[in-house]
Amino acid sequence: MTDIAMITAATARLQGHVRQTPLLHAPLLDRLAGRRVFVKAECLQLTGSFKARGGWAAVSAIDPVARQRGVIAFSSGNHAQGVALAAARHDCPCVILMPSDAPAVKIANTRAYGAEVVLYDRETEDRDALGAGIAADRGLTLIRPYDDAQVIAGQGTTGFEIAAQAADAGVTSGDVLVCCGGGGLASGIALALEDRAPGLRVRTVEPVGFDDMARSLATGSRVRNAALQGSICDAILTPTPGALTFPILQRLAGPGLVVTDDQALQAVALAFTHLRIVLEPGGAVALAAALFAPDLPDTVIAVATGGNVDPATFAMALGRFA
Amino acid sequence: MTDIAMITAATARLQGHVRQTPLLHAPLLDRLAGRRVFVKAECLQLTGSFKARGGWAAVSAIDPVARQRGVIAFSSGNHAQGVALAAARHDCPCVILMPSDAPAVKIANTRAYGAEVVLYDRETEDRDALGAGIAADRGLTLIRPYDDAQVIAGQGTTGFEIAAQAADAGVTSGDVLVCCGGGGLASGIALALEDRAPGLRVRTVEPVGFDDMARSLATGSRVRNAALQGSICDAILTPTPGALTFPILQRLAGPGLVVTDDQALQAVALAFTHLRIVLEPGGAVALAAALFAPDLPDTVIAVATGGNVDPATFAMALGRFA
Repeated sequence: MTDIAMITAATARLQGHVRQTPLLHAPLLDRLAGRRVFVKAECLQLTGSFKARGGWAAVSAIDPVARQRGVIAFSSGNHAQGVALAAARHDCPCVILMPSDAPAVKIANTRAYGAEVVLYDRETEDRDALGAGIAADRGLTLIRPYDDAQVIAGQGTTGFEIAAQAADAGVTSGDVLVCCGGGGLASGIALALEDRAPGLRVRTVEPVGFDDMARSLATGSRVRNAALQGSICDAILTPTPGALTFPILQRLAGPGLVVTDDQALQAVALAFTHLRIVLEPGGAVALAAALFAPDLPDTVIAVATGGNVDPATFAMALGRFA
Repeated sequence: MTDIAMITAATARLQGHVRQTPLLHAPLLDRLAGRRVFVKAECLQLTGSFKARGGWAAVSAIDPVARQRGVIAFSSGNHAQGVALAAARHDCPCVILMPSDAPAVKIANTRAYGAEVVLYDRETEDRDALGAGIAADRGLTLIRPYDDAQVIAGQGTTGFEIAAQAADAGVTSGDVLVCCGGGGLASGIALALEDRAPGLRVRTVEPVGFDDMARSLATGSRVRNAALQGSICDAILTPTPGALTFPILQRLAGPGLVVTDDQALQAVALAFTHLRIVLEPGGAVALAAALFAPDLPDTVIAVATGGNVDPATFAMALGRFA
């Protein structure tokens, strides 16, 4: 079970291998939002998303003999790249199972980091059986995208940085809005903030129709989404909260927030204009909530989780909203 | 005349008012370039360009009585926004003369920072006479975009950061490529590096046809460009090197580099894909040189100077090169 000691240990292992990302803000964005909005720009992380943290934390925690055999991960993109880069830097073989309809840029980059990408058809193939077969044949260690104690610890290092950067900016209370799929990042940050900045509270943000975490937090037990796809926020469409992440968020997070796809695209466009960062829609839902959700405190910190977006999708967001 | 003491004093005045920008890098970008490429991301600076530094340095150096009367600047965009934000934060009236064909986003943002924008027609109106009239009527202090000792000192604070961040990355020698209009940023950085990182050498980068600095450095005296417009790199089209900046660069900078508009647009697209930052074409010429110029050292630092770009131009760069 992830605890503060594991996040501290992950911080030491990540030192020099992942980037401390900046906490950005912009006067004109604050004016649009009607509140102070800080943006933790994890799109500037190596591999373009916070997943580089969890990938490094997990790969570096495997015992060297098992690591030499290799790792395997299932991912539509950001976790894939995070694990692939960490594996390459550890000289560790890496197999990634990706759905064949994953964004082209994510497939290409995962291969460029040196991973062996195995594509499967979401409709007709059983990903878990396929992956289990490959893993057994080669003795690979599976790295889960969020329900993994070391991955949560790695993502939690983001929370230590937020605590320090918020204090530097004079911010000791407010909501920390986190784009949420399975809840690995949100739960890691929540644990880190509990220790270092107890006045900052995590709130998950999800797309409409994929608000399994918000509904689970509201009802007190893990519920599932009706659909598995159908939002432009591909990076954060997960069926149900993680078994490890949900109890942490149930204890520490405030009510979950929900935004529309159009609000996410508008946040992509406003981040382009006012922050000059590139966000993917799923990485922009927290900023969308910071801009458009009612009843938030005067100061919020939105974690901009990823920037791996196909150029056509990005141009579409600019065409509609910039 | 700007010296290291003025840059040190500017650093103190800027503290807490402008941002320390990150030095980014990306494994896949290094592979494309065939060398190590670090990117000093001044597009993440407040107002979206390094000009916030020079603007703050200049406005904060004016004596309070004169400052109360106000400031005036001539600018097609980035200097305008830098001066406008600094003036607003000093409760100082601010008039900006902008050509009526400046990018819409730059005009809109300059107004949003609270400046009074006066548009003039490049073809039919005499900008200097217009500005001199307004300045005399109201007792405004003119802040020049580069030929101003305090502006150069403000831009030089970027060089202190580069020196420290390069040392952290283990880099003590190499070329520092700087997008160059009048040479304010390049000369400020050159002075800072001479003091703090003498193994790092500044090289200016300009668009083809607007390489007045490269030709002036090569011939030893200030020459003029044949044209005043005709490149997509609007932010850095200046007629001739500055009277203050040129002697500094002549003493400290290496040979100037030149890139094509298409190379600049390709750098915009590659920065989108691999660094997830938004660059304007004129802010991307240094990165373009880092990627495409022959005969550079194994390690280069490219200063990405600005990210205030119209969405249509950005989408065009992605459509052609991403």
